[in-house]
Amino acid sequence: MEKFEINILGCGAALPTPRRLSSSQIVNIREKLFMLDCAEGTQMALRRSKLPFSHLQAIFLTHLHGDHTFGLIGMLSTFGLLGRIQDLHIYGPQDLRRIFQPQIDYFCADSPYKIILHEIDTKTMQTIYEDRSITISTLPLSHRVPCCGYLFQEKPTPRHIRRDMIDYYHIPISQINNIKKGMDWTTDDGTLIPNNRLTTPSDPIRSYAYCTDTTYRPQLAELIHDITCLYHEATFAQEHALLAKKTFHSTAAQAAQIAHDAQVGRLILGHFSSRYKTEDALLQEAQAIFPNTILAEDGMRISL
Amino acid sequence: MEKFEINILGCGAALPTPRRLSSSQIVNIREKLFMLDCAEGTQMALRRSKLPFSHLQAIFLTHLHGDHTFGLIGMLSTFGLLGRIQDLHIYGPQDLRRIFQPQIDYFCADSPYKIILHEIDTKTMQTIYEDRSITISTLPLSHRVPCCGYLFQEKPTPRHIRRDMIDYYHIPISQINNIKKGMDWTTDDGTLIPNNRLTTPSDPIRSYAYCTDTTYRPQLAELIHDITCLYHEATFAQEHALLAKKTFHSTAAQAAQIAHDAQVGRLILGHFSSRYKTEDALLQEAQAIFPNTILAEDGMRISL
Repeated sequence: MEKFEINILGCGAALPTPRRLSSSQIVNIREKLFMLDCAEGTQMALRRSKLPFSHLQAIFLTHLHGDHTFGLIGMLSTFGLLGRIQDLHIYGPQDLRRIFQPQIDYFCADSPYKIILHEIDTKTMQTIYEDRSITISTLPLSHRVPCCGYLFQEKPTPRHIRRDMIDYYHIPISQINNIKKGMDWTTDDGTLIPNNRLTTPSDPIRSYAYCTDTTYRPQLAELIHDITCLYHEATFAQEHALLAKKTFHSTAAQAAQIAHDAQVGRLILGHFSSRYKTEDALLQEAQAIFPNTILAEDGMRISL
Repeated sequence: MEKFEINILGCGAALPTPRRLSSSQIVNIREKLFMLDCAEGTQMALRRSKLPFSHLQAIFLTHLHGDHTFGLIGMLSTFGLLGRIQDLHIYGPQDLRRIFQPQIDYFCADSPYKIILHEIDTKTMQTIYEDRSITISTLPLSHRVPCCGYLFQEKPTPRHIRRDMIDYYHIPISQINNIKKGMDWTTDDGTLIPNNRLTTPSDPIRSYAYCTDTTYRPQLAELIHDITCLYHEATFAQEHALLAKKTFHSTAAQAAQIAHDAQVGRLILGHFSSRYKTEDALLQEAQAIFPNTILAEDGMRISL
């Protein structure tokens, strides 16, 4: 299968510590890199990850709080110093231009590449990026400021040709694409060969949703039903449920409830408050509701 | 002696790496902390240093390039989250307000403390901070944008009283301060006791200059004559002297020449280009001119 990999660069909440950066990830799909949020220190974490800077296609910011954006200007500046020439597209909620364009104009004035800012409406689900193999859509979230998650979905891929059967029935090259798409084949003597004798099934379609920061939002489950993997913020443990509600964050149990309702393949918890020495309690309360849960960790790489 | 300590948080040039942050230091004078520059990642380095955040008095920016300022907004935001209430003064060249006030207004809107920006003239030497024990003055430098270094100077301290002699001559408490200032004492029978029998010399006056970024600037030596310790940028080795000149940086040999001409106590080299795998060559060429030279390192602590 083609590469579809989540690289967690940082998964802490508002206060970065030497142990854990604030929010930042790279989704690596067939060696195209997509960045989710960009906390202070992201460029150093990106270096540590050994992912090639030049493969970065676009950056998606969930919201304009500092713990999701303070690494942006430094990283953009570094790309310029390293001689990037490829355009870089940055998506984020309203105010993206007002806040970041002046910084870019001042600190990246000599940059050899173009930085293009896209302000998106966070209130409705919409597809904002598409290429041959994937779509990326927004997921409305509820936080103290306009905020959205992002859903990465592979496009359906063709069925796999069985070389031996193609040879056996002398099917011409010109028909291969049709066979891949599911067409049956009729031999010269009129025998119909059903497509499933000529092909094996296409790869399963994989999908990943990145949902942070948000209060518990039950209606999110419908939008991400059946996805392969969900990253959901779990800033607090259930014992701090009131604080979570007040600050528009989620508990680990609430994240697990979303994963359970959406019947996702697996759940990654992140955006941990620095008040917890370990996140064992968060993991336990989540696994009680949705067993296939893991804790994010800086530097973690997950293959879907 | 009272504490006078340089804490190097970062000493790399423009490109921060996992090995080395860009420019940032803390000068710790009697547990008052003064920050010099604030590269991305400074707040994490400050945590690692275990210096108490709350003791930070003021921040001094040499110039408004990103590798000296990108950590500022994140650190200011963190101070707010941690509940700082004490005013924080930030000094820097022209444009400081234009560039940073909008970021502060947006990202630190709820901060419980006041951030006061001071734009300084970098072209003349002037004292911009003073308290009971020190003065901090600017040092004009020559870079591609307005830029100045900073000179920390202790104020003269009184001579140390010799308790035993005070008791022996029955000198009243009321006269102690005068004796500390150097006054002689006349006993009841008219004998003059010279001050140097009643006191030991005051502590030597220590001073530290932070000079980055700058092209080789011979006239700097006069302004820092005889200081205890000089940190001078040494972005390049002498083999890249032309590149240094072109980019308004210095070579290690040029930094050493300044140290030699100014007859400083010791020299710390920093702001190393990331092109060098080790800085051994820089150290060697500097020591050939000024032997008491060391290389800065992230996390280094130097007591004056």
